[in-house]
Amino acid sequence: MSDRILNAELKNKVVSAEEAAQHVNNGDNVGMSGFTGAGYPKALPTAIGEKAKAAHAAGEDFKINVFTGASTADDADGVLAEAEAINFRSPYNSDRGLRNQFNSGEAFYSDVHLSHLGQQVQQGFFGDMQVAILECTKINEDGTIVPSSAVGNNVEFAAAADKIILEVNSWQSLDLEGMHDVYVPELLWDRTPIQINRIGDRIGNTFHTIDLDKVVAVVETDRPDRNTPFKEPDEISKQIAANFLQFLEDEVAAGRLTYDNYIMQSGVGNVPNAVMAGLLDSKFENITAYTEVIQDGMLDLIDAGKMTMASATSFSLSPEAAERMNAKADFYRKHIILRPQAISNHPEVIRRVGLIASNGLIEADIYGNVNSTNVTGVKVMNGIGGSGDFTRNAYISSFVTPSVAKGGDISAIVPFASHIDHTEHDAMVFVTEYGYADLRGLAPRQRAERMISIAHPDYRPLLEEYVEAAKKVGGHTPHDLTQAFEFHNRFNSTGSMKK
Amino acid sequence: MSDRILNAELKNKVVSAEEAAQHVNNGDNVGMSGFTGAGYPKALPTAIGEKAKAAHAAGEDFKINVFTGASTADDADGVLAEAEAINFRSPYNSDRGLRNQFNSGEAFYSDVHLSHLGQQVQQGFFGDMQVAILECTKINEDGTIVPSSAVGNNVEFAAAADKIILEVNSWQSLDLEGMHDVYVPELLWDRTPIQINRIGDRIGNTFHTIDLDKVVAVVETDRPDRNTPFKEPDEISKQIAANFLQFLEDEVAAGRLTYDNYIMQSGVGNVPNAVMAGLLDSKFENITAYTEVIQDGMLDLIDAGKMTMASATSFSLSPEAAERMNAKADFYRKHIILRPQAISNHPEVIRRVGLIASNGLIEADIYGNVNSTNVTGVKVMNGIGGSGDFTRNAYISSFVTPSVAKGGDISAIVPFASHIDHTEHDAMVFVTEYGYADLRGLAPRQRAERMISIAHPDYRPLLEEYVEAAKKVGGHTPHDLTQAFEFHNRFNSTGSMKK
Repeated sequence: MSDRILNAELKNKVVSAEEAAQHVNNGDNVGMSGFTGAGYPKALPTAIGEKAKAAHAAGEDFKINVFTGASTADDADGVLAEAEAINFRSPYNSDRGLRNQFNSGEAFYSDVHLSHLGQQVQQGFFGDMQVAILECTKINEDGTIVPSSAVGNNVEFAAAADKIILEVNSWQSLDLEGMHDVYVPELLWDRTPIQINRIGDRIGNTFHTIDLDKVVAVVETDRPDRNTPFKEPDEISKQIAANFLQFLEDEVAAGRLTYDNYIMQSGVGNVPNAVMAGLLDSKFENITAYTEVIQDGMLDLIDAGKMTMASATSFSLSPEAAERMNAKADFYRKHIILRPQAISNHPEVIRRVGLIASNGLIEADIYGNVNSTNVTGVKVMNGIGGSGDFTRNAYISSFVTPSVAKGGDISAIVPFASHIDHTEHDAMVFVTEYGYADLRGLAPRQRAERMISIAHPDYRPLLEEYVEAAKKVGGHTPHDLTQAFEFHNRFNSTGSMKK
Repeated sequence: MSDRILNAELKNKVVSAEEAAQHVNNGDNVGMSGFTGAGYPKALPTAIGEKAKAAHAAGEDFKINVFTGASTADDADGVLAEAEAINFRSPYNSDRGLRNQFNSGEAFYSDVHLSHLGQQVQQGFFGDMQVAILECTKINEDGTIVPSSAVGNNVEFAAAADKIILEVNSWQSLDLEGMHDVYVPELLWDRTPIQINRIGDRIGNTFHTIDLDKVVAVVETDRPDRNTPFKEPDEISKQIAANFLQFLEDEVAAGRLTYDNYIMQSGVGNVPNAVMAGLLDSKFENITAYTEVIQDGMLDLIDAGKMTMASATSFSLSPEAAERMNAKADFYRKHIILRPQAISNHPEVIRRVGLIASNGLIEADIYGNVNSTNVTGVKVMNGIGGSGDFTRNAYISSFVTPSVAKGGDISAIVPFASHIDHTEHDAMVFVTEYGYADLRGLAPRQRAERMISIAHPDYRPLLEEYVEAAKKVGGHTPHDLTQAFEFHNRFNSTGSMKK
């Protein structure tokens, strides 16, 4: 047995995943750890999937409702979707098979802000929670838990659930201990301020205290997180990043930012990687990150002394970066904090610290409304994730995107966004490889000009044509609703938004 | 001279409104006090309007950019619009003449969340602010200011502006003194928590400290706020209110609310009036309000001992209620606090206290996206106001609306909202005279059923027809974009959304 289970009571509860899965029943609300493919349970989902398959083979119903921090991986959402074991899912998913089930109406998905779900579960918006399945790095002698590579909604799920199943994963580095800051806010109607003033402030414990009486099973695992190899940014990503950095420079020149007050929030992907690489050679110093996910580029910035502190709720590192992190854990522990996602994404703290948010999108319209979730308005991709938490409360919100997708057949700038996740009231700055559009202080008619200026040249005449038609209808926000979705309708019928 | 100007230095600066208006120049950014027709300057706008007319008559340019708390009145926005003296306006307007200028493109309007504007002005998102014009009740001997019937963005405007003009309005009751709680947060990057834990917590001063060296003129006035007589709720409003109260009762039954933990945020109008009247006879006790505006119904609840504390940034009382308030100011002062709008609408406090938001709308779509601002997507009505501040951060957000407008020709529930100010991620509960639709925990396909159930019976078959067409296209959020705006297009061509 693993030497990572130091509590005698819980040692006695070690069982196989199959045995543990007997505690999960048809119709249960099940909360799982895990965020961006890190820290999710690695054994129970497969065992639950097997149980579902057996039930289905016997002609019995077996589906559960799954709540997590954010995305998991093939061996969690993937196996459950494959077993048709999921009825309802929240708050975020990136599994392809499960996504297909949402889009066909076979499974139900509620796309919830990542900072909101924990409270909503605790307050019973989804009914009672029967089981919480939490991965951890280690169980301490006193029964407190060292979380693994994500904290997610562990605090709320453990508090809400009737039963807790722990997965102790010996693949997770013991060096994670000390990086977490597990803060438990007071319950509703008795809350007090979250006393984080600076990104590096610690306000909780390095461990998670749970009700040991709720623990019905402990399972041992030794399996890796979903590892995504680092992808070198392509030329377009580098140009978008350069334009984003120019925007930051222009903010400094305008007196709205200083070189040592850049607080970063960043989505994951090619463009953020390029931005972080660009920051290495920039004039910005003492950069901090108040964000969801620790990425490779942040380690580079920490190594270079450019970034002093990064706060998040999970890791999303390449295998190489994870190795580097573990090798220098003592050093990184001074610069990295992992918090519950209710805190990493909390409107209170985001608003207070004054960060600059930067997220990707599917499309934006000429007035600055953003679709982050539904392709052509109907097919959900992943979900809003934390983009709403950060966009809505940032000092400055920005969106970064290539101007086209699908080899040019989809324009990222359209007349009317076919689904809206962020409104004109919240989205301030848009960046493509053609420059940036700063919409602050502008009326809709003025915004359209800026947005078209960063669209792909192939689409600018079509967008201008639309604006002319819309102005004939007139109004504060000119639109011709008879052709507002022409880009999308053309794409649906011809495969291209081009005429 | 009024005995309300107790500071000797400022007494020496008393001039006429015409003289004071000489400090306002073409192209200036001008910040004014005022929120929902209360506490706005009553003399300077007319004087500036006259100055603009004279300039225009002489063939000279004269337009200014006007920033306020929220709406003002005929003798502020109205006279400036009539003089064509406004180039740009933010964050909220309800003046008809000015609205027409936005809709024709003659003037520019940026529709900003009420909690955001102050910071954005201070951080220079709109350039420098040349002048702040602030109404006050009294100037104390030490030069501190007692605000009048609204606090609005006074703190931020006074801090940002080069010059300050004060209007001392002797119409405002001296009994207002002591009701204000003027809190000045630290500037960006040095902020700390806003230490409001309970609705009645006071964290600032009853007066506003300004830089006396900036004061270039003091003007005396004696004119009333925009007074709106109380309108008795009609039968439909009463039914909507009854359904809203049923929703609250059901929340208690479900264990998500208790009878003494209802924290109210409420828009202004017929339905809120009916809700407050209904609460008088309800089981709810110790009600508090963390909201923007103190309304007649709140005084009734305070009188009845049902409401213990109401926090807002302005008054919007009928003449009768204002008289009542002044007659019993000593009593009401224990139950009412007026805060800067950055605090009354602050995401941090709203999220912490756990309130139930309730706002009106123009239309909502079958998936729960809300249009609060633009009629048929193009013509702006007033603006988003504080509805985004509260909806986004509430414990539970709700929208209340009659199911139809314009004698039945407009449905409040449509296939696709023609403008979106609040997204499916934020809007939880909708209430019409036909019941309430609780969308929490539901996927879009499930939401549509609930929304249609509270639509007007005349529109239910049309909405169901759309859903069937949309399901043929499929997807997580089924839509047929070739007919998503058919309700609006029909209304535009026939004058009715009905077939």
